[in-house]
Amino acid sequence: MIARMTTNRSTERVMLAHGGGGELTGRLIEEHFLPKLSNPALSTLTDGAIVPINGTPVVFTTDSFVVTPLEFPGGDIGRLAVCGTVNDLAVMGAIPTALSLGIILEEGLPMDLLDRVIASIARSAQEADVPVVTGDTKVIERRGEGGMYINTAGVGGLHPGAHLDLARIVPGDVVLVSGTLADHGLTIMSVRAGIAFDSDLRSDAAPLNELVARLLECGADIKFLRDPTRGGLAGVLADISARANVSIEINEASVPITSTARHAAEMLGLDPLSVANEGKLVCVVAHDDASKALKILHAHRHGKQAAIIGRVTDASPPLVELRTRIGGRRIVQRPYGEELPRIC
Amino acid sequence: MIARMTTNRSTERVMLAHGGGGELTGRLIEEHFLPKLSNPALSTLTDGAIVPINGTPVVFTTDSFVVTPLEFPGGDIGRLAVCGTVNDLAVMGAIPTALSLGIILEEGLPMDLLDRVIASIARSAQEADVPVVTGDTKVIERRGEGGMYINTAGVGGLHPGAHLDLARIVPGDVVLVSGTLADHGLTIMSVRAGIAFDSDLRSDAAPLNELVARLLECGADIKFLRDPTRGGLAGVLADISARANVSIEINEASVPITSTARHAAEMLGLDPLSVANEGKLVCVVAHDDASKALKILHAHRHGKQAAIIGRVTDASPPLVELRTRIGGRRIVQRPYGEELPRIC
Repeated sequence: MIARMTTNRSTERVMLAHGGGGELTGRLIEEHFLPKLSNPALSTLTDGAIVPINGTPVVFTTDSFVVTPLEFPGGDIGRLAVCGTVNDLAVMGAIPTALSLGIILEEGLPMDLLDRVIASIARSAQEADVPVVTGDTKVIERRGEGGMYINTAGVGGLHPGAHLDLARIVPGDVVLVSGTLADHGLTIMSVRAGIAFDSDLRSDAAPLNELVARLLECGADIKFLRDPTRGGLAGVLADISARANVSIEINEASVPITSTARHAAEMLGLDPLSVANEGKLVCVVAHDDASKALKILHAHRHGKQAAIIGRVTDASPPLVELRTRIGGRRIVQRPYGEELPRIC
Repeated sequence: MIARMTTNRSTERVMLAHGGGGELTGRLIEEHFLPKLSNPALSTLTDGAIVPINGTPVVFTTDSFVVTPLEFPGGDIGRLAVCGTVNDLAVMGAIPTALSLGIILEEGLPMDLLDRVIASIARSAQEADVPVVTGDTKVIERRGEGGMYINTAGVGGLHPGAHLDLARIVPGDVVLVSGTLADHGLTIMSVRAGIAFDSDLRSDAAPLNELVARLLECGADIKFLRDPTRGGLAGVLADISARANVSIEINEASVPITSTARHAAEMLGLDPLSVANEGKLVCVVAHDDASKALKILHAHRHGKQAAIIGRVTDASPPLVELRTRIGGRRIVQRPYGEELPRIC
């Protein structure tokens, strides 16, 4: 018999694991936030909300970034902050229109580092073609070397070609990813662990709004899109399975992961399926349209290594199953806690 | 001769004073942010931006909150975060529609304190009738007792009665405030200094969207609205003067300040005109409509102590001048640096 640990509410405290994007993050939100703040828009728990303003549906989302180190191979906190919110809008079926930028600076932050991050924000916003239109800056007392936190919120209009709805997912649908997985999270963890791979391991942070628009405009029946950030591919697939009440079968051999990333994950003891990405899409598409969607992904600079990785099934109970290279099967679960603290 | 201190860019660091909402904050934004991020919407430097989405103008704003302590007489960080963004939207002439909520929690934060803050966010959002529709939560490592930072962004549609434009301000216009000044900042500073006033000194944090709507609908020619947060009344008036190229004359005896606040400001060595408010409006109205606007303010629970405090003049050069109680005159300037760190 397994006894469930009881917690004393009056002494309970926030733990790092509450921020990992896994099971504990879900509980924090469901037990502490939703009961008080609940309203129809918030309770859908997607990456954003759709708000009608004078009759026009406006997609609205927010994300905070606390990554350390602030700069890393392939990006920095500023690029993450732009791409993260642009991508959250895009996977909601929005055409991202504008970003807000809320920066909290720690006293002592070198001004030239701030300047590099701001320049990166500007470059990334230009690359995504989504301007930063409003901002706010606060400064907090020095505690360490001088860090920073960034919040970006974003707004956009609905793409007329978007009919994204978990409820439309049915057995037979095909699951694609837009490229290699785990590069972002592994890059951050490698830098922190002081491991230098003499290699191409770098964050994949990239704005995906153009890629998403091409997918939505290609005529394929795209049913669901998500950027697998905290919690990785495993988190997204577990979410789809639980909320659409379907099973998903993934072929390990089809999941694109570079050999460097595979090696890094082994050294760090991490499951690459649970590691964060910042420039990748998970896409569920109708069976007959899978190759059309894959072609669109392959034609775009951010989708060259896209792959069909699995399919939706009617196996019961609803689970995510990985068929391993050696023919075995294992259940893919939403990560529990904080495998990767402050990864984004 | 005054030599201007030169700064070595490579060793320059962020200081607490950069976050005070004064001269140094302005320089940080103008020298480090705007040159790279500049676009027409951002460069107006108002409290938000107006973004067209499918032909509908959407007002969009963001604000981060880092106040310590997290709870104080009259409010807490959650109430500030809701009211601050609702008010920023309202003074832009928007009808606030929805808020986002980005929370950064420090490991070790007591869960019951988090629960109180979330409950306060929910109550304040309900009071303002503006729901929180999307959110994000991150956790950072423990450094102190366990704190939290909150970012709220907000969206809204334009109020059809709003014709707010600094360029419409002309000599003869009248300046009003919606109530007593400096209560919020002095409350925070008193708590931090360990000074207990056996009194009614408490933060004025309140959502002003209903009050603003009444003003915009009353038929008075309202030319400009602003909530005097960081930098206080002095900061707002200095901004108006500089940007509208007009002078403003304020009568000290007309500025509503409670005797408790006056006493607290003296003890703390602060100028109440430069202290932050979180539930007050500064309003510039056409001369002939001043009494109509005042009546509307007086009729609302958040405007009972509203007052006409001065007028716009054509004195040259453009300055803000205070006529003191004893008949003297002094120039009112935008505060320089961080009089009140982490006040909001």
